[in-house]
Amino acid sequence: MRIYLDHNATSTARPEAIAAMTHALELGGNPSSVHAAGRAARGLVEQARSAVADLIAAPTSTVILTSGGTEANAIAIESAVAAGTKRLIISALEHDSVQETARATGAAVETLPVDRQGAADLAWLRERLACWDAAEGRAFVALMLANNETGVIQPVQEASEIVRAADGWLHVDAIQAAGKVVIDSRGIGADTLSVSAHKIGGPQGAGALTFGPRATLSRRQHGGGQERGRRAGTENVPGIAGFGAAAKAANPRELQPQAAWRDAAAARLKAHGCVIMGEGAPRLPQTLCFGTPGFSSELQVMALDLAGVMVSAGSACSSGKVKASPVLTAMGQGDLAGCAIRVSGGWNTSEDDWNAFLEAWLEAHARHAARRKEVA
Amino acid sequence: MRIYLDHNATSTARPEAIAAMTHALELGGNPSSVHAAGRAARGLVEQARSAVADLIAAPTSTVILTSGGTEANAIAIESAVAAGTKRLIISALEHDSVQETARATGAAVETLPVDRQGAADLAWLRERLACWDAAEGRAFVALMLANNETGVIQPVQEASEIVRAADGWLHVDAIQAAGKVVIDSRGIGADTLSVSAHKIGGPQGAGALTFGPRATLSRRQHGGGQERGRRAGTENVPGIAGFGAAAKAANPRELQPQAAWRDAAAARLKAHGCVIMGEGAPRLPQTLCFGTPGFSSELQVMALDLAGVMVSAGSACSSGKVKASPVLTAMGQGDLAGCAIRVSGGWNTSEDDWNAFLEAWLEAHARHAARRKEVA
Repeated sequence: MRIYLDHNATSTARPEAIAAMTHALELGGNPSSVHAAGRAARGLVEQARSAVADLIAAPTSTVILTSGGTEANAIAIESAVAAGTKRLIISALEHDSVQETARATGAAVETLPVDRQGAADLAWLRERLACWDAAEGRAFVALMLANNETGVIQPVQEASEIVRAADGWLHVDAIQAAGKVVIDSRGIGADTLSVSAHKIGGPQGAGALTFGPRATLSRRQHGGGQERGRRAGTENVPGIAGFGAAAKAANPRELQPQAAWRDAAAARLKAHGCVIMGEGAPRLPQTLCFGTPGFSSELQVMALDLAGVMVSAGSACSSGKVKASPVLTAMGQGDLAGCAIRVSGGWNTSEDDWNAFLEAWLEAHARHAARRKEVA
Repeated sequence: MRIYLDHNATSTARPEAIAAMTHALELGGNPSSVHAAGRAARGLVEQARSAVADLIAAPTSTVILTSGGTEANAIAIESAVAAGTKRLIISALEHDSVQETARATGAAVETLPVDRQGAADLAWLRERLACWDAAEGRAFVALMLANNETGVIQPVQEASEIVRAADGWLHVDAIQAAGKVVIDSRGIGADTLSVSAHKIGGPQGAGALTFGPRATLSRRQHGGGQERGRRAGTENVPGIAGFGAAAKAANPRELQPQAAWRDAAAARLKAHGCVIMGEGAPRLPQTLCFGTPGFSSELQVMALDLAGVMVSAGSACSSGKVKASPVLTAMGQGDLAGCAIRVSGGWNTSEDDWNAFLEAWLEAHARHAARRKEVA
């Protein structure tokens, strides 16, 4: 048995994406070449750019293709600092690629707190921006659209109104939300917004950033002048083509049924003392994060893996390191943060997969409880 | 007819690379995940890293996988500046990704000149480093292994002795040389050396940097801690797998026969007044760069494209812009720099391809000469 329920780490590549990549590889050509092969490769890149733009309702000309979500986030943050911002407000929910990049800029970093349900505290943000010191440049606020661990959807539209009133710059990491909820990057008022291919069934190694009229982007990679000079380097044509195909295929509706399957599993888990993270907040339909007192994240992930069910503890990027999730800790979950796992479905996940997870977990939990009883 | 002779811009993807990518895409998984799928993805990445290390005779643990050659070059240059270098010596032959990145660091940039045959002037380098001001930090010298436009192989080993005697840092852009000549990154004394997948039959979007014990690398991308913290972001597993497969398949011997096919074409071209760039220097076996007085690069590329033969004027990255090649200009080629084209074969290029190019060029040249006669 092999049940993959770690789509928030990396989703399964869609057949459409694999086909588009193979086609691009067979076609060949460098998009900067003026000959027929070059023009064909350029066509693939621009077609994909347009599909990605559609996914997030952004004007195609504002979409910069990157090597992934991390780079897209980096361009946004580094651009704000280059444009004069001396202090960054980063929500406690943000991914390491935002947290670490912000700290590496040398600018001061302040944390936008989060409530117990895993939603950003906008009252704090309003108060903080009301007394913003203009000497620190434009306020920059990073608030993701949906959290990768809990799936909690953030009040981004409301945040953007607050940020805009203070003439600030709102960066929205939509990497985990893309393809799972409908995204209108302009409508929600994001000044910059990032997405990644491999979270929506495209390949790893491709991402994008869209920027609005109030954001001034600086160059991150220098050289051949690709991406209007903002991100030099020969375009990853196969990766971009796969991204475009995945963006076209991704449809939030296809994931809707999973909310019920997830909630059914959650009800059973709660009967065993589990705490569902962000249960009271709007969440992505296919993400379930829960803590089990006394049953460490690591043991749960390992036991499930042995049973052929793949889930994660926290985000994949930090799951190599055994430490409690900073996001859950920020949510005030205390010790539970070290006993939480994330189960996340994708475009090819069935109700049977959710059931298989539940059965495997119940068995692992029973064995764990029996062992603890023995020891006690 | 479709004759692709622009492999120095981007080579045709090898079947092995396409198969490895498809396999990786079907396998799925995030290399940072601890479960079975994650471990399998990690295995693919490390297998590829080892194949890339073999290609350049570098210890596997010193190979950092990047989003491409541009990023690999950027890590080297930015690391040197972060380590205290205040002045960069960049050869006139370097690719835009080196030239532009160097200029963007804010450090002073000096140009290492080049002779008429397209080889770096090492006497200049020796003299320059003899009077290096220690207050400018360690000397950093960028000299590519083989030039992308002319194919001229640079005296890198000798340069490294000069740089080492001055306790400097030699960066070798081996992007165009990899797979075309045997590379011993440690033997030639490179402190950092960059390669790219799509020049050797792998996909675009993957590259690597190897670093020796005298180079201290800084972080370029921050986040999940991938690539030992130097290049965060989920690994481009399919791209990396394709890179590894291409690195394994690439074999300089397979290109050797092209030197004779190229030289046969060159002999015919010279009979029509063409000047072969770097003819007197050691060159990559499959690269031919030549100038034709009075026949602009652009017209030649377009005429050949119409005939189904794809070549380039200068490097692909700058060929969108119509300007004379800075490399050929630095070689003292004057007006000829605006009348030069590059023909470059690859792993799947046959003698027939070279002949087809020659026939198409002769026809285009004859038509061009006739038009000029009419006008005169």
